[in-house]
Amino acid sequence: MLEICQFGAGRIGAIHAGNVAAHPGATLRYVVDVDRKAAEALAAKHGAQVVEADAALADPRIGAVIIASSTDTHADLIERSARAGKRVFCEKPVDLSMKRVDACVAAVRAAGVPVLIGFNRRFDPSFAALKRAIDDGRVGPVELVQITSRDPNPPPPAYVKVSGGLFRDMMIHDFDMARWLLGEEPVEVFASASCLVDPAIGAAGDVDTAAVTLRTASGRLAAITNSRRASYGYDQRIEVHGAKGCVSAGNRTETTVALADAGGVTGAKPLHFFLERYAEAYRAELAHFLEVAAGRAKPLTSIEDGRAALRLAEAAVESLAGRRAVAV
Amino acid sequence: MLEICQFGAGRIGAIHAGNVAAHPGATLRYVVDVDRKAAEALAAKHGAQVVEADAALADPRIGAVIIASSTDTHADLIERSARAGKRVFCEKPVDLSMKRVDACVAAVRAAGVPVLIGFNRRFDPSFAALKRAIDDGRVGPVELVQITSRDPNPPPPAYVKVSGGLFRDMMIHDFDMARWLLGEEPVEVFASASCLVDPAIGAAGDVDTAAVTLRTASGRLAAITNSRRASYGYDQRIEVHGAKGCVSAGNRTETTVALADAGGVTGAKPLHFFLERYAEAYRAELAHFLEVAAGRAKPLTSIEDGRAALRLAEAAVESLAGRRAVAV
Amino acid sequence: MLEICQFGAGRIGAIHAGNVAAHPGATLRYVVDVDRKAAEALAAKHGAQVVEADAALADPRIGAVIIASSTDTHADLIERSARAGKRVFCEKPVDLSMKRVDACVAAVRAAGVPVLIGFNRRFDPSFAALKRAIDDGRVGPVELVQITSRDPNPPPPAYVKVSGGLFRDMMIHDFDMARWLLGEEPVEVFASASCLVDPAIGAAGDVDTAAVTLRTASGRLAAITNSRRASYGYDQRIEVHGAKGCVSAGNRTETTVALADAGGVTGAKPLHFFLERYAEAYRAELAHFLEVAAGRAKPLTSIEDGRAALRLAEAAVESLAGRRAVAV
Amino acid sequence: MLEICQFGAGRIGAIHAGNVAAHPGATLRYVVDVDRKAAEALAAKHGAQVVEADAALADPRIGAVIIASSTDTHADLIERSARAGKRVFCEKPVDLSMKRVDACVAAVRAAGVPVLIGFNRRFDPSFAALKRAIDDGRVGPVELVQITSRDPNPPPPAYVKVSGGLFRDMMIHDFDMARWLLGEEPVEVFASASCLVDPAIGAAGDVDTAAVTLRTASGRLAAITNSRRASYGYDQRIEVHGAKGCVSAGNRTETTVALADAGGVTGAKPLHFFLERYAEAYRAELAHFLEVAAGRAKPLTSIEDGRAALRLAEAAVESLAGRRAVAV
Repeated sequence: MLEICQFGAGRIGAIHAGNVAAHPGATLRYVVDVDRKAAEALAAKHGAQVVEADAALADPRIGAVIIASSTDTHADLIERSARAGKRVFCEKPVDLSMKRVDACVAAVRAAGVPVLIGFNRRFDPSFAALKRAIDDGRVGPVELVQITSRDPNPPPPAYVKVSGGLFRDMMIHDFDMARWLLGEEPVEVFASASCLVDPAIGAAGDVDTAAVTLRTASGRLAAITNSRRASYGYDQRIEVHGAKGCVSAGNRTETTVALADAGGVTGAKPLHFFLERYAEAYRAELAHFLEVAAGRAKPLTSIEDGRAALRLAEAAVESLAGRRAVAV
Repeated sequence: MLEICQFGAGRIGAIHAGNVAAHPGATLRYVVDVDRKAAEALAAKHGAQVVEADAALADPRIGAVIIASSTDTHADLIERSARAGKRVFCEKPVDLSMKRVDACVAAVRAAGVPVLIGFNRRFDPSFAALKRAIDDGRVGPVELVQITSRDPNPPPPAYVKVSGGLFRDMMIHDFDMARWLLGEEPVEVFASASCLVDPAIGAAGDVDTAAVTLRTASGRLAAITNSRRASYGYDQRIEVHGAKGCVSAGNRTETTVALADAGGVTGAKPLHFFLERYAEAYRAELAHFLEVAAGRAKPLTSIEDGRAALRLAEAAVESLAGRRAVAV
Repeated sequence: MLEICQFGAGRIGAIHAGNVAAHPGATLRYVVDVDRKAAEALAAKHGAQVVEADAALADPRIGAVIIASSTDTHADLIERSARAGKRVFCEKPVDLSMKRVDACVAAVRAAGVPVLIGFNRRFDPSFAALKRAIDDGRVGPVELVQITSRDPNPPPPAYVKVSGGLFRDMMIHDFDMARWLLGEEPVEVFASASCLVDPAIGAAGDVDTAAVTLRTASGRLAAITNSRRASYGYDQRIEVHGAKGCVSAGNRTETTVALADAGGVTGAKPLHFFLERYAEAYRAELAHFLEVAAGRAKPLTSIEDGRAALRLAEAAVESLAGRRAVAV
Repeated sequence: MLEICQFGAGRIGAIHAGNVAAHPGATLRYVVDVDRKAAEALAAKHGAQVVEADAALADPRIGAVIIASSTDTHADLIERSARAGKRVFCEKPVDLSMKRVDACVAAVRAAGVPVLIGFNRRFDPSFAALKRAIDDGRVGPVELVQITSRDPNPPPPAYVKVSGGLFRDMMIHDFDMARWLLGEEPVEVFASASCLVDPAIGAAGDVDTAAVTLRTASGRLAAITNSRRASYGYDQRIEVHGAKGCVSAGNRTETTVALADAGGVTGAKPLHFFLERYAEAYRAELAHFLEVAAGRAKPLTSIEDGRAALRLAEAAVESLAGRRAVAV
């Protein structure tokens, strides 16, 4: 039974803690959060204790940590946990600064512990099946990856300011998926973007609508679009075109109900947001982390993957400012 | 916190016990099963105790029972539980004999406790949404209900012999759905059926492929088809046609992945069987039972509903033998 | 170049005449209709002449006739044309009376000319592909055929009175499809039906909503539903379930446009009625007739097929009256 | 009755000539082609005559011309026809050189005759319905247009050499659609592209796989992807995202048949190529041209639209070479 300390008792923390509780191979021993009340509520729900970070990391019974606290704490907690010999599962991003990420990667390598970065989409059953289809040669060599990714509603301006911007905060998931599905590293990034959804986002120095193109050394392309708004719910679709065919994965709907009448045939909307859409992905991600912690698997999304996605996000920022393709 | 005793530790029992464990408003105290080992395994998993039925029913801390044991024990356990003042959630069917069901209904009425019969499909999110669309007048007055219901594989002959036959065992779910969706009681039943899937089923005196027509007093129709085989997985679809339109609910697929190539466009199969397809329905059913047990809701599927569905199954058997419509 | 005389210049006549005109292997020489004005308009459009039936049938240049006049003229015109040695393409039904049909069949056999009966659905590209899939063994031995067939709007009461009723007028198409797809002759028919759409239909002695079950000697089943109303357009769907799988064919929509917004995802309706839905089928049917007329093919839908479908319609009428299955 | 002279008797010429022949308001009088045999065959089929261009343009009975000859003849024929006072329907592109196009535009303006450029996709029923949905405000202000456009097979190298390249030859259609659907002129173009499908295309100096981003002055974006290969048939899809929702239009399939079995659920492929997919569009385009010729409509796709699309193609070429966004 792996005993776990979780940092962060917020929305995504509640998901991970619930998945630990439901898993027969792990138990949640500690919850750490600067918001003491949130920590206590989550700990009480799962029979865990609230402690300070140092105490948790000093406890030899703790074999692994889950870092679901705010972004600015990620790199520190990864380093401290790694130095304490704990296996680490940390939400994306590692950090918003590449320099800080590099230091963190070095510390992790020195500590020699496995670190899983929470790019949850790779664990979505449909996207995982899509990847298997590619690996099984069902579409032939990949030529073009198309990713559509839209949030149902724009985030609050306060969040926008600390988010690192759309490319580092939102599209970073799509950069990870593109790298994974292209099967080659992108060497060139071009970004075009606008503020069309919410002027407050523009006032905060960010964009809310974007189209980005990636190219690999052999010429494979990825076309990614993002928007902070989709009135019909969370829109998460991927198409991978290869020499032999195309494999795609679409949205899950709330129900399968359709109403046919004089106005047309109306079906249900996609699931509303990431908590619903990726509920299965989060369960599979935790199960994978337990395999990693047990030494039976390597992290599907390593800290190096976290670094590589951030590098693409930085290139996108640079491209947008310079109106030209940026080499990576 | 409602304390529950569950009778039956088999496949469906594991589902219900798991849902009780995951629900914040209930706890599983006792598990009862003639298979002591199965009882102990399930009890251990959820921190419950294995006891005999009498002891469980005599314990005043037990507020409710879940009956998931074999069909021939249902009526007895309903009666004993009702007499002991426990709220009851019993898997379908109440019994295979109408006489026994009538006695059981009388006993339940005398005891004055609520009894929920496990017609799980009414709790499926898509079928529930379909019913709401009807109740909201979206299709106008109902004229025709079409139900397609197919199991992925035929049951073993040993099960067929004690099952009561396809109409009482399998189509009874569809009879319940038809009654619910027609909004009127069927007054006439016609059944046509064959043994096409497995000769062993025919040797056991049963059929495996069936088409049944129901008619209500005002002339509303239901057309139900059943098969014990569907190579592509569990097939559970309903269409309701009314004066203003049609509302339908279909199958959930394993993934949303589609492969387009020279051979066509191939998508995923429906979820394979009832445990996967109706996982959400079982959760919603348990939540409803807790509302019923708390006196905040009436059973959506009462013991009288269980009786009415069995009555239609009996009429179907009679119709098949006599090759004529049977009045109900 | 096959020279053709067409009887009937109404709605369906215009379709056939247009298809003759567009076909490089045939030309429309004569149009015959009791409505002289309609005949002249259609003839003018395609460079044909208006004549009386006798003159047309006496003209040795006429190699084939198309009978698209009112139902009560079909049998006479088939017989007269056959006796004149013309190849015949006649709209369904041959006649509403079985006795009259039998006489007509005898006359056709005596004349030895090929007669194609216009069961257009067999020529629909999707239904034809579905049949090929069955014949290619893609679903294994057929077990159950499900046919949903709904008109967009009820016919005028005046038409209902001369139509022969829903079973002979509308479901006769589905009886033909069921026979074709079952691959065996039905030996038993059960019909349930109501008047729910338009009281004027009931007043005319007919029904407008029906569910019919067919059974073959080996136990294969067909479940057919019909309605004279579908607010969302012409609804024509077929599913064929076999031991190895299921093949289905659905509706064509007006466009592929879908609108996703806060109200759901709304797509286009099915094509509105038979003229649009079966436009391709009518073209393929005419092309097939020209092959038949040239002696290169046998009629896919012979006069015997017309008789067999009528026999099922009669059995349905008898079943509805007697509330029992009727042997065929 | 509008009398028409058609230049070009090849594949697309046959489509247009057939549509003229089938239209009650027009007749094909002349066919002109350097390939005399092709001209004679097409003329014979529709009762037209083969003449030289001068003779046709000098004939006052000719009210309109259709230019479906090779690209390098378009501009000359447009100018000569315009000077002769004929209404013009010319296949895209006007020319591959912007200078030549500018001269042609000037000549057309001087002549004052209407010129329709054959951007057939605007006439596709689904794309036209999508545009109407936008114009009706169904998606709110447009924010992002996504266009996927893939040919089933790469063109022969000989064609590639004279085609002007993928951007001028293939994506020019998508540039036109993007302009039309964005509702604003793009002011910036970025292109990324590779040769992945056929090395012969690369040897001819062209690309076969491309992703292009357009941006308008107000920040609206379009993301276009092209490939010269799609094993599953012609792939032509558009999504338009706006503040209130998303409207999309997809592919038409060969049939509606689906086979469900142990391998999944397999449906038909998209229609194979442009002749099938856009058959209805070509008919509607011709009908629109007759309205234009009659003075009852303005060209939906004018010669200025042809120029604007070419301008975007040129910018894409420049962007690809310079790896930067190009202002238009």
